[in-house]
Amino acid sequence: MDANRSTPTLTDLRAAQERIAPYVHRTPVMTSRTLDVLAGTHLLFKCENLQRSGAFKARGAVNAVMQLTDEEAAHGVVAHSSGNHAGALALAASLRGIPSYLVMPLDAPRAKVDAVRNYGGAVVSCEPTLAARQEGLEAVRAETGAHEVHPYDDPDVIAGAGTAVLELLDEHPGIRLVIAPVSGGGLLSGTAIAVHGIDPACVVWGAEPSGADDAARSLTAGRLLGNESTATIADGLLAELSPRTFAILSEHLAGIVTVDDSEIVDAMSLLFGRVKLVVEASGAAGLAGLLALARTEACRATAPPPAPLPEQVGVILSGGNLDLDQLPF
Amino acid sequence: MDANRSTPTLTDLRAAQERIAPYVHRTPVMTSRTLDVLAGTHLLFKCENLQRSGAFKARGAVNAVMQLTDEEAAHGVVAHSSGNHAGALALAASLRGIPSYLVMPLDAPRAKVDAVRNYGGAVVSCEPTLAARQEGLEAVRAETGAHEVHPYDDPDVIAGAGTAVLELLDEHPGIRLVIAPVSGGGLLSGTAIAVHGIDPACVVWGAEPSGADDAARSLTAGRLLGNESTATIADGLLAELSPRTFAILSEHLAGIVTVDDSEIVDAMSLLFGRVKLVVEASGAAGLAGLLALARTEACRATAPPPAPLPEQVGVILSGGNLDLDQLPF
Repeated sequence: MDANRSTPTLTDLRAAQERIAPYVHRTPVMTSRTLDVLAGTHLLFKCENLQRSGAFKARGAVNAVMQLTDEEAAHGVVAHSSGNHAGALALAASLRGIPSYLVMPLDAPRAKVDAVRNYGGAVVSCEPTLAARQEGLEAVRAETGAHEVHPYDDPDVIAGAGTAVLELLDEHPGIRLVIAPVSGGGLLSGTAIAVHGIDPACVVWGAEPSGADDAARSLTAGRLLGNESTATIADGLLAELSPRTFAILSEHLAGIVTVDDSEIVDAMSLLFGRVKLVVEASGAAGLAGLLALARTEACRATAPPPAPLPEQVGVILSGGNLDLDQLPF
Repeated sequence: MDANRSTPTLTDLRAAQERIAPYVHRTPVMTSRTLDVLAGTHLLFKCENLQRSGAFKARGAVNAVMQLTDEEAAHGVVAHSSGNHAGALALAASLRGIPSYLVMPLDAPRAKVDAVRNYGGAVVSCEPTLAARQEGLEAVRAETGAHEVHPYDDPDVIAGAGTAVLELLDEHPGIRLVIAPVSGGGLLSGTAIAVHGIDPACVVWGAEPSGADDAARSLTAGRLLGNESTATIADGLLAELSPRTFAILSEHLAGIVTVDDSEIVDAMSLLFGRVKLVVEASGAAGLAGLLALARTEACRATAPPPAPLPEQVGVILSGGNLDLDQLPF
């Protein structure tokens, strides 16, 4: 697509779906009767924890990298990322046969650093601050001439991310509510564009940790707000919305529900114990949010929770990369 | 099928497949490029950890319970089991609308006891000895008139267990080696009958913990041997072959490879970390065995390991029920 156009459309998403199909998994959709009873509705889990590189991020990274001109691609790609975008970009670069440089903070989960190395990416460590990450990225770019692929503020990355829910709705057209975690808003933006392109009546919710709730506060305020500090087990949900993703979410979202770490850990535990899936904290936030919406009264959300919930609900499990010796149970 | 006939055939397995289809999942088949590199071949994981009740056992229990006459079913069903057969039988009984009684040792994993209660089964606790379990079962039978469904020494249970690999080979006819864990031998017997019914040239291996290796010793000796004691993390692989399963395995098996607990834990860790699947120790024994076979020289097996391994290998991941606070990593 035209990289200058700020917002991808359903047509761009369908093109992305076709473009990335040879390189990524069509992930399975799982269900659990136990969780249906708990939620009071039928949940359809889109298992992006089972995606290549262990997260939905492979979709956006592959979609972006495969569209680079040979000239753009020649010197490789670079990004700063604490996690899943790094592994995904390293995978995408290896598929295209170009180098990748990933600026990662020293406190990034080992599993996520290992994933980058596993795909042949070069890890550049830095202090865990946004300034240090940006500085590291600029240094790599100056030295190598690598092309930056942003983890979410990029229409091609957003279009790729939206292909997960395209698959889900193609298989389960009866879904009337979809919920996904929100960090920088790339996944949720792509999801919202896909859902409303297919069915404007299907509502889209975001789930956000209360310890990094810039998106919920921004939507409520009607303007972009940042996080003064962040504190959450969901290490993949620390980023902030960009003007682009804020605009998309403002147009499409029914609301954002915020969840505490204890609710995220409960959701992880249910996914491990009942669905037998390894899902990282960030990846379980969507289920945590849905269970909060199901409790209606107790839930903290930017809009009234839908009551009753629709009969079929799609939940995006966004990733599964975590250190096994750091499990919260 | 005729319950007096001792060994089910492929025809019985196909009938079981049709009979249980409305009640059990057709489980997904997963792959992992990282594990393929480790094994030196392409592995196709049949995910029975994602089966209803969390284990392949649902297949055999449903196949047996659905064939009971109304008279046999009237007073419910009973079994003694430390684990997955208990949950599966409770599920099967609930599907038929009859009571179930499960005699379970006091040291059974909580997750497995909870599964029984979750399906409405009555748990009868007993000391963790075979004598106490048998005694408990007889007491329930005397009191209730319940029909016993044996966890593996039953042709209908074996036929049900064999349907997992039927699905796998229907989807991946290029598989030339299948490996599954062995305990009482029900899963492995059903698997061997299915595989050789479809393709006599496809070889079938069993994987057994070295701390409960009655099957490997029995095959080597050419006669049924028991375990004097058992010591393994694989709490679902403690049972011993019956004359029926010994006969089936003696006829069909290429060999049994024995694995230590450390190899089983390594396999679990790979499945959690790389394939993002929750698999219990017993369920991971097949992968542990295959990785041992891949190392050829170092492996302890009842026959020479196939070298090289065929290009496509099926691995049955038999179950995923474990206590999250007891994870070995």
